[in-house]
Amino acid sequence: VCPVSHRDDEDTLKILIATDIHLGYLEKDAIRGNDTYVTFDEILKHAKQNDVDFILLGGDLFHDNKPSRKSLHNCIELLRKYCMGDKPITFEILSDQAVNFSTSKFPWVNYQDENLNISIPVFSVHGNHDDPTGADGLCALDVLSCAGLVNHFGRSRSVEKVEVSPVLLQKGSTRIAMYGIGSIPDERLYRMFLNNQVTMLRPREDESSWFNLLVVHQNRSKHGATNYIPEQFLDDFLDLVVWGHEHECRIDPERNEQRLFYITQPGSSVVTSLSPGEAVKKHIGLLRVKGRKMNLEKIPLQTVRQFFIQDVVLRDHLNLFNPDHPKVTQKIEAFCQEKVDYTGGFEAFNVMRFNQKFVDRLANPKDVVHFVRHRECKDAKDEENINFDELLSRASAEVMQLRVEDLVKQYFATAEKNMQLSLLTEQGMGKAVQEFVDKEERDAIEELINYQLEKTQHHLKERRVEAVEEKIDEEGPDTTIIIISSSSEGPRRKNRSCKITNLYFLHLFIIFSTRKKQM
Amino acid sequence: VCPVSHRDDEDTLKILIATDIHLGYLEKDAIRGNDTYVTFDEILKHAKQNDVDFILLGGDLFHDNKPSRKSLHNCIELLRKYCMGDKPITFEILSDQAVNFSTSKFPWVNYQDENLNISIPVFSVHGNHDDPTGADGLCALDVLSCAGLVNHFGRSRSVEKVEVSPVLLQKGSTRIAMYGIGSIPDERLYRMFLNNQVTMLRPREDESSWFNLLVVHQNRSKHGATNYIPEQFLDDFLDLVVWGHEHECRIDPERNEQRLFYITQPGSSVVTSLSPGEAVKKHIGLLRVKGRKMNLEKIPLQTVRQFFIQDVVLRDHLNLFNPDHPKVTQKIEAFCQEKVDYTGGFEAFNVMRFNQKFVDRLANPKDVVHFVRHRECKDAKDEENINFDELLSRASAEVMQLRVEDLVKQYFATAEKNMQLSLLTEQGMGKAVQEFVDKEERDAIEELINYQLEKTQHHLKERRVEAVEEKIDEEGPDTTIIIISSSSEGPRRKNRSCKITNLYFLHLFIIFSTRKKQM
Repeated sequence: VCPVSHRDDEDTLKILIATDIHLGYLEKDAIRGNDTYVTFDEILKHAKQNDVDFILLGGDLFHDNKPSRKSLHNCIELLRKYCMGDKPITFEILSDQAVNFSTSKFPWVNYQDENLNISIPVFSVHGNHDDPTGADGLCALDVLSCAGLVNHFGRSRSVEKVEVSPVLLQKGSTRIAMYGIGSIPDERLYRMFLNNQVTMLRPREDESSWFNLLVVHQNRSKHGATNYIPEQFLDDFLDLVVWGHEHECRIDPERNEQRLFYITQPGSSVVTSLSPGEAVKKHIGLLRVKGRKMNLEKIPLQTVRQFFIQDVVLRDHLNLFNPDHPKVTQKIEAFCQEKVDYTGGFEAFNVMRFNQKFVDRLANPKDVVHFVRHRECKDAKDEENINFDELLSRASAEVMQLRVEDLVKQYFATAEKNMQLSLLTEQGMGKAVQEFVDKEERDAIEELINYQLEKTQHHLKERRVEAVEEKIDEEGPDTTIIIISSSSEGPRRKNRSCKITNLYFLHLFIIFSTRKKQM
Repeated sequence: VCPVSHRDDEDTLKILIATDIHLGYLEKDAIRGNDTYVTFDEILKHAKQNDVDFILLGGDLFHDNKPSRKSLHNCIELLRKYCMGDKPITFEILSDQAVNFSTSKFPWVNYQDENLNISIPVFSVHGNHDDPTGADGLCALDVLSCAGLVNHFGRSRSVEKVEVSPVLLQKGSTRIAMYGIGSIPDERLYRMFLNNQVTMLRPREDESSWFNLLVVHQNRSKHGATNYIPEQFLDDFLDLVVWGHEHECRIDPERNEQRLFYITQPGSSVVTSLSPGEAVKKHIGLLRVKGRKMNLEKIPLQTVRQFFIQDVVLRDHLNLFNPDHPKVTQKIEAFCQEKVDYTGGFEAFNVMRFNQKFVDRLANPKDVVHFVRHRECKDAKDEENINFDELLSRASAEVMQLRVEDLVKQYFATAEKNMQLSLLTEQGMGKAVQEFVDKEERDAIEELINYQLEKTQHHLKERRVEAVEEKIDEEGPDTTIIIISSSSEGPRRKNRSCKITNLYFLHLFIIFSTRKKQM
């Protein structure tokens, strides 16, 4: 894979790539409320101006699982405005569309629908924010796909295996096999990779002639032992991976030296968390593919507010701020106005009052300065350098040797993050409550209870613990407390040393109220 | 206005009329969950089979103000399935579409959009269930209209006056002026009619050549002195009024002898309340208009479950059931299985247990039998026969003579249903809480408080009650209790005698689990 020339011709597929647009994020904020819509408008404008063949989105088009009416309305408005029109589509789809778009009520690509005049097709996987939930198993993208505005692909209905059937595209002599994996809980997908339950199907004809593109929406950075997808898990026939979910813009393709593919991580187009990754300048990509060569042009987004972040370690500046000095807090406060420094054992000054000074100049007057009590977590060093090939082959061999009882036990242990087995785990309950609140999924708690009850009954049946089974029936599915607790611990519990230190950090978060650069 | 022949020709406009489809009603019910979608499918199928020119809906297409994803998805699916296609549209719109569809982001009729291939345009006003709410002022129909699937019309943005600009349609020599008034709180609209603030604009050319059609979504039956719209309020140039909101099917056009127009009330296509009106067979209408003549053909809906209701007054059957007999309750229970009778002073039997006997046969096993303690409300008789013309002319004359102070006072009195003037009325708070709960309008309570605070401050300013004004400021807009109460009563407080009697009624509500007629 090496760069192609910028000259666009009949063999060059031009694709606009973007991810994590999070429509509706902070939409009730007086200053920032329209930011996501303004930036989505900019993104679609770039697509139109650059005359792309299609748009590829990496998930989290919506911030909320159940987008507000305003969010849905604005999204539909922008898609209809920019993606419908008379521009002819010059690529074709060779794969079986009924398979590619099997979850849609209209299982064919929107630009081939006789009743819709599409100028720029949008292809998207779903993210964790707009993932399918509820008894209907629908997600927000399905509403768009039903309306003919988006081609939702990469959805797997099974929770046991993932079989990815690529969308096969051809323009002139260039052929792209486009694989999509919509968001799956990281631990589940990690486990499926380990158990060889993730299959990427290859085109039958002329395997080597295809440019192989994968779009995923998962943790790329390690949030826990199995709470991410190591790059090495992915097949080495791939040419390019578009990585969604991670908000930091690392759009320049990075080569994975072990698997020999490139990864581009466009990052979100809006700042949703006050973290250093979000302070990196936001971009989208213009990907050109000709034959098996590619080129990725970065397009900086103009409408995204600049976000400035600085950590100040007070302890490093004892000469400036003596914690025992009676007026040290005022000194720090004064200093903050130009960027500051700090050390452990300090009192926090009134941040609210401080922040108010910037009401007219900043978009985030409520959270400019954060005091942080630092917490250090050190994972056991031996996890760092894992030979994933060995892990993968060893894992599947191990699986073969386990008995059913062990599998159930292991399933519980892994599913519940090595917590004690219980009918209603804290974690499960926490997730259900979160779905209930965040995603307005009213049945989430009942579903969780029924699901865990069934799971536990199944587990107990396997173990023939009949006495306890009766106890479950007595309590019935209406109870919401932990009622059964086995003392068995999950296998392979990792040693983790977690040290909480007493350092004060000072975070400065600055988002400008105008979109022009000020610093 | 007299009947036209059934022969369809190039001068006959064929319109399918339906209302109150309430998509999503009871959608989580195991038996009835899909009823509304099944019936909407049937309605659209009738439209297609009858080759209508367009569909006219009278509001409440959705049951919930914020329809569930499933509801929206299914609605979009059905509209795309039935209303898009290659059938040519043979009528044209002569009015200014930017005015007719002014609230849409795409203010033109969908079938004229170059990017959409519409076969059956749908025109709809909004109902009280799917009315605009929130800061964005959008309603569920706006999402459909933004997607190009529905033409939402008849929306007035002003709360002080309504000016209805008709959609002017022409097919061959037939011309229809189609007026729409989307749902407005009955009392507000009543007041606006009284104050001559409702204007129906007439076409400039050849006024007498138009067939004048109005679609409204209001209470038609009297729910209180001003809590409905008397038919007589409507202009007498109208030929036909399509009345939405009322669920009883009274689709055969009824002539208003005073105003000389016809009213057709299609009624809901789903039973949403256990009331006698809902037990009437459900229909939609096929309206043919040729010149100024019309014909309305009733189409019975096949997919609606049959609903049987019977009131049994126990007191009328003392010979069968003696309330003093020790086993009278069991006797009644036994009798209920074939339809029963009753009298005052009885004990209710276990309805839950009784209802369970019908689990397999009925769709409403949980609410077959209701015991009702009857409550009689008698309005003062003199309200019954009002001369509305006199009322209308007298009212506007009266308005001219009032001082500003009186106007404010009157406004409060009318707006708050003659209750005592207060910062937060029970009624206002009740409505806000209902919006918060029913419509998931999270800001409704805050908006109500701010609105009423402002209103009260304005009122006090007018009256120069400065001492009290300070008190308001003290309490601020965060408080949620009644803090100011004027002793002035609203004008014209009606005498109402309300007698609660102790009679027991027995309601039998039966909805069949299959859609075939069983009785």
